[in-house]
Amino acid sequence: MTKAQAMSTYLTEENSEDTVIGRIGEDCDSRFRQIMESAVRHLHAFVKDVEPTEAEWAKAIAFLTATGQKCDQNRQEWVLASDVLGVSMLVDAINHRQPTGATENTVLGPFHVEGAPHEEMGANICRDAKGESCVVTGRVVDIDGKPITGAKIDVWSDNADGFYDVQQPGIQPAMNMRGIFTTGADGLYRFRTIRPTSYPLPDDGPVGEILRQLGRHPHRPAHIHFIVSADGYETLTTHIFDAEDSYLDSDAVFGVKPSLIANFVADPTGSARWHVDFDFVMKPAT
Amino acid sequence: MTKAQAMSTYLTEENSEDTVIGRIGEDCDSRFRQIMESAVRHLHAFVKDVEPTEAEWAKAIAFLTATGQKCDQNRQEWVLASDVLGVSMLVDAINHRQPTGATENTVLGPFHVEGAPHEEMGANICRDAKGESCVVTGRVVDIDGKPITGAKIDVWSDNADGFYDVQQPGIQPAMNMRGIFTTGADGLYRFRTIRPTSYPLPDDGPVGEILRQLGRHPHRPAHIHFIVSADGYETLTTHIFDAEDSYLDSDAVFGVKPSLIANFVADPTGSARWHVDFDFVMKPAT
Repeated sequence: MTKAQAMSTYLTEENSEDTVIGRIGEDCDSRFRQIMESAVRHLHAFVKDVEPTEAEWAKAIAFLTATGQKCDQNRQEWVLASDVLGVSMLVDAINHRQPTGATENTVLGPFHVEGAPHEEMGANICRDAKGESCVVTGRVVDIDGKPITGAKIDVWSDNADGFYDVQQPGIQPAMNMRGIFTTGADGLYRFRTIRPTSYPLPDDGPVGEILRQLGRHPHRPAHIHFIVSADGYETLTTHIFDAEDSYLDSDAVFGVKPSLIANFVADPTGSARWHVDFDFVMKPAT
Repeated sequence: MTKAQAMSTYLTEENSEDTVIGRIGEDCDSRFRQIMESAVRHLHAFVKDVEPTEAEWAKAIAFLTATGQKCDQNRQEWVLASDVLGVSMLVDAINHRQPTGATENTVLGPFHVEGAPHEEMGANICRDAKGESCVVTGRVVDIDGKPITGAKIDVWSDNADGFYDVQQPGIQPAMNMRGIFTTGADGLYRFRTIRPTSYPLPDDGPVGEILRQLGRHPHRPAHIHFIVSADGYETLTTHIFDAEDSYLDSDAVFGVKPSLIANFVADPTGSARWHVDFDFVMKPAT
């Protein structure tokens, strides 16, 4: 081997990205190659930018390790990391470049569960009798404003104490604050719940430690989750946010979009304390 | 809140990095801020470059999770990830910009253990009677070529089957292929071992799967590990590589440097089958 060959074969500070990328095999899947080439270029650029000491790199390895080890059936610390670094919302934005007029997406979050009960319009999904009662109403329509029949509205939220039922098994009733509603020919929906409450993300793990070191709080502004689906339309995963919440401009997961903020007003019918009205505008399936 | 305020407060595809960085608190440690700002910029640039689908991002989360969960007392899958992506060697290069003439560093690897036995010069560290015998000799000197007295040479390698003792507890003798030697006034060292053998990294985990998808093999070329330390000098962590190994130009962890390649020759004294001579040149401590 000549010295020139050696210089291009062996990794140096100068050639590091190209050396790693140069090892990728001929028959590597082209999309996987594209992703890994970009990952290697950005990872090496990051390391060259910050020039970590060996002790700092060891800390990074310890963080990466601990974040995976914190994950279990009820906890996904890497999703939390992706959320609090704004990556989940960026991936969401890239995948849901909506046409004008369609309701915007936001994060799914880790607390959705399959199999919530199907309910009649008007039913109450608050099954623990806590919190301030609220009627939620609106329409599911297409981008021309025409009602969508048979749209499924899967709703969930935390309870008045700021916890989802799956965070408190045995404490909250099963399927507390969850239900699925199906629209009729008018596209209207209506259900009872509580005015939602803000809550902190689980911050007792490595991601919580990063938030503390960054001088950031772990709170999400009060919101109700929705997955709205209908034949022929792109499924919509979104929230309604409470316009009066103090964490609206500092959501720990960057999930707030101005178009998703709604006013909770005193219920004019007196059947509940609060009322909020919000229409879901669906985009045709591609 | 005005619309202009909203546009800068809420995360969009366009402002995502700035929005996340803008949340860092005033009293965040300045070095931590620098590292996290760079991490966020490169992470978001990577996502914008490859535009992952939601399914691809979920796969990335699954990889990150599994890599942490593969780690235990005997396995550090994140170090392996850092190694095979060339990051460990890049961090090493950044932290050891040697003056001309000093022996170059390379990766520590995951198999060093503290507490290897102190041995007399000439002792045999091969404790399982396998492999092709080899005498290793050389000098520990400063950059002016003067011998260093009292330098500690901590040596370790895999055995003839390609495994380190810690990978085969109960199969290999304790401290097989390990020993610590201390130089006298002449700076000379001398010990017996075997001519080292190449071996695959543990590739039954998420990192092995990445290597397979990249069309890369998991092998390291044959080498002997050294940590050389002496008062007043920067500790040197390095390898001697066997010049005849077929994996020299494709080390799975990019650890090879041309200056660390040595010729193993028939032992002229006949006391062993092979002989290799290598001098360690130490840099003054900073």
